[in-house]
Amino acid sequence: MLTKNKIITELKKTLPLKNVLTEVEERYAYAQDASNTPCIKNLPDAVVFVENIKQVQDVVKLANKYKTPVICRGAGTNVVGACSTEHGGIVLNFSKMNRILDISAENMTARVQPGVVVGELQKRVEELGLYYPPDPSNLAVSTIGGSIAQASGGARTFKYGSTKDYVIDLLVVTANGELLRTGASTIKNATGYNLNTLFVGSEGTLGIVVEATMKLIPKPETRRVIMAYFDTVRGAVEAVNTIIEQKIFPATIDFMDKNAIQTVERFYPAGLLCDKESALVIEVDGFENAVELQQKMIVNILENSGAAKIQYSHNEEEYNKIWTARRSSMGACAKLKPNVTTDDVIVPRKNLEALVLGIREICRKYNLDVCMVGHVGDGSVHPQIPIDYNDKDEYRRFKLAKNEIYELTARLDGILSGEHGIGSLKREHISKVVNAEALNYMRTIKKVFDPNNILNPYKIF
Amino acid sequence: MLTKNKIITELKKTLPLKNVLTEVEERYAYAQDASNTPCIKNLPDAVVFVENIKQVQDVVKLANKYKTPVICRGAGTNVVGACSTEHGGIVLNFSKMNRILDISAENMTARVQPGVVVGELQKRVEELGLYYPPDPSNLAVSTIGGSIAQASGGARTFKYGSTKDYVIDLLVVTANGELLRTGASTIKNATGYNLNTLFVGSEGTLGIVVEATMKLIPKPETRRVIMAYFDTVRGAVEAVNTIIEQKIFPATIDFMDKNAIQTVERFYPAGLLCDKESALVIEVDGFENAVELQQKMIVNILENSGAAKIQYSHNEEEYNKIWTARRSSMGACAKLKPNVTTDDVIVPRKNLEALVLGIREICRKYNLDVCMVGHVGDGSVHPQIPIDYNDKDEYRRFKLAKNEIYELTARLDGILSGEHGIGSLKREHISKVVNAEALNYMRTIKKVFDPNNILNPYKIF
Repeated sequence: MLTKNKIITELKKTLPLKNVLTEVEERYAYAQDASNTPCIKNLPDAVVFVENIKQVQDVVKLANKYKTPVICRGAGTNVVGACSTEHGGIVLNFSKMNRILDISAENMTARVQPGVVVGELQKRVEELGLYYPPDPSNLAVSTIGGSIAQASGGARTFKYGSTKDYVIDLLVVTANGELLRTGASTIKNATGYNLNTLFVGSEGTLGIVVEATMKLIPKPETRRVIMAYFDTVRGAVEAVNTIIEQKIFPATIDFMDKNAIQTVERFYPAGLLCDKESALVIEVDGFENAVELQQKMIVNILENSGAAKIQYSHNEEEYNKIWTARRSSMGACAKLKPNVTTDDVIVPRKNLEALVLGIREICRKYNLDVCMVGHVGDGSVHPQIPIDYNDKDEYRRFKLAKNEIYELTARLDGILSGEHGIGSLKREHISKVVNAEALNYMRTIKKVFDPNNILNPYKIF
Repeated sequence: MLTKNKIITELKKTLPLKNVLTEVEERYAYAQDASNTPCIKNLPDAVVFVENIKQVQDVVKLANKYKTPVICRGAGTNVVGACSTEHGGIVLNFSKMNRILDISAENMTARVQPGVVVGELQKRVEELGLYYPPDPSNLAVSTIGGSIAQASGGARTFKYGSTKDYVIDLLVVTANGELLRTGASTIKNATGYNLNTLFVGSEGTLGIVVEATMKLIPKPETRRVIMAYFDTVRGAVEAVNTIIEQKIFPATIDFMDKNAIQTVERFYPAGLLCDKESALVIEVDGFENAVELQQKMIVNILENSGAAKIQYSHNEEEYNKIWTARRSSMGACAKLKPNVTTDDVIVPRKNLEALVLGIREICRKYNLDVCMVGHVGDGSVHPQIPIDYNDKDEYRRFKLAKNEIYELTARLDGILSGEHGIGSLKREHISKVVNAEALNYMRTIKKVFDPNNILNPYKIF
């Protein structure tokens, strides 16, 4: 307690008073993230709003001196407990470091502070005819810092890759408070080890990203989305295979399972076909004539695949309507029970049907609802399970089901997370998919960068 | 010498006799790579042709026991001395581990042994309608293992990214002979630290890649290449900016400077315009109608930019003719002097003209010829300098020029290598562009993975 008081006193000396929150209500508000875990084990000792790199360095030096945890936070939208303060410590809130520092159309790069909202960056670069593709579904609020920490993807990852493919340079405050530059201003780099991607997905455990330079690409001229329904999950996957065989490279190939379709239709009626096992949501982008051609080819393939009710967008309004149905799944699920959880398992595409049907079977066994949406192209599935955390038996069944889902994923040659990270919620399961040798190297790397274990301790493993 | 004999005796016990070369002529042949360095400091003690993972593990365990260097070698095409045996040791030759183990069209992945030739992999996946984009210029002979070691790029990196963007999983033999799996079979992964990209570009200094799984994409239906000439380097760069502004995303945007144009025309006449300062070689790919549209748009932009003699390919023959002119630069340069060297500096695109003109000025100052080709899109320049290594004064001037070129690159916010690596030739210069903090972490990571410094020791730094 004495140490905690000392830290708070020093924090208040180091930073503007208004930037240091220590009231219990304030600390409570920052003890959790969007992972919706049923209990909060520990509150942070203080929540600090940093405004510049120097302040971050000062706070980290202080934390290192007292060996107290530092937990970085953007918008707190992650769903794996990566921001949870289970061991107390200092929450570094980056919402005030939210400036786009520079966009160079000629270099096709954007230099940003970590608190910049992903959707805001996208809007700004698109005004210049450029494009930042990674599109986590919470991009209207989630930040670039969070995207880097969690290696965020999104629907467009299939064609355009995920956050890791766009980070070309980072400024990182290390555990000892020094400033490390990991990359370069160039969009290609083969000069020494790739430290950039070591930090992408490291969930704030290796260092604190205080500035990032992202690669941009030319903005596609137009886009169109196509939706269709199938009697089986396999039917949808096979249609996707045929699309690829025809050399079409859609920006996204998303899907919804029957329960997701029905739940969305129940709460946000959009005329979805509720008796179908699955739906595909396919987006193509590029020049108008190529988009038109690909849309026709895809519609033709879908017809030959026995798809029902094939729709496509003729304009931005219809485009948004179709995507809204796909994106309403989590919100609709949340109406079924007091809480809703999502997950992020991924397998090679040939095993996607087995994963979807297997998850459905596991949830049935444990008497749980599950809505599944995901990215077929990647083999990525987000099982959304509505739950009442106050129902202890349900929570017990939920934990058992999760364990079986991860075991199934491992058997299907998959991995625990494609784009959300591991955080605190999935760390007990990581050895199901990452072998001991790799985990040992990861732990050793953690020790190299954070010998006192102050940076988001005990996350990932 | 005693230790060397012991090692050779044990190697001959461990491997089939025919796989262990120890004659001086044989060792001489594997002491060097395509970097064309003027002298060989040391021969390897033995050259070993490995045929499977177990053999690699056995050799590495042996090397670790005797603390002797292990230098991996694919086709030996790297140009930075990454395969040079300056400290003796064992050359691990991967040319017999050259099987494509599996191509899954449904998963869009290829699992390969490190000795697979890049061009061979491309051919095989293209037969299935798939595409492996990275295209180092030596792809007809260079291997996937080498591409991973050197973080190879190529002309298509501008649109499609480089090797690092396609590695999803590696099997690596570590310095202690254990087998490490770095990734997963899925094309997206946010499960723990990204060990894949830590190995890409590590030049064999952290571990030995014995199997790799690469992501594939749908093959573009067609492609077309456009060539045009400019009175200034800046004119070419500005035309490129306009192309991007019009939302065109070419697969490649390459260039040649005046000396490259003239040298190619002198030795391989192709009707190039020898009085122009620069030429652009732009490739667009995708569906025929979009390629046609983009070609028209690009020709229009080039006309408005004052470009001369705008040509484009109507068929594969014309396509190859234009690319052959661009790719003949190194061969033409080699005819000017007994040796030719190439390099790989890269700057943000806005600084490309300053880099090209600056390199020309530096070479003029030191009385050296230089032909420059490169990838304008990336800001990447390959200065090719013909040289006679037996001319000691010329070599002295060459070294001074190189030093100035790297200093200029650093001043222009660039980096030493975009796609070739650092090896032994550029390591003395790495601190010009990578700061001490980053180099320290790189050195520490090296120690984590290779505590006895046996894996390609003293390369990179």
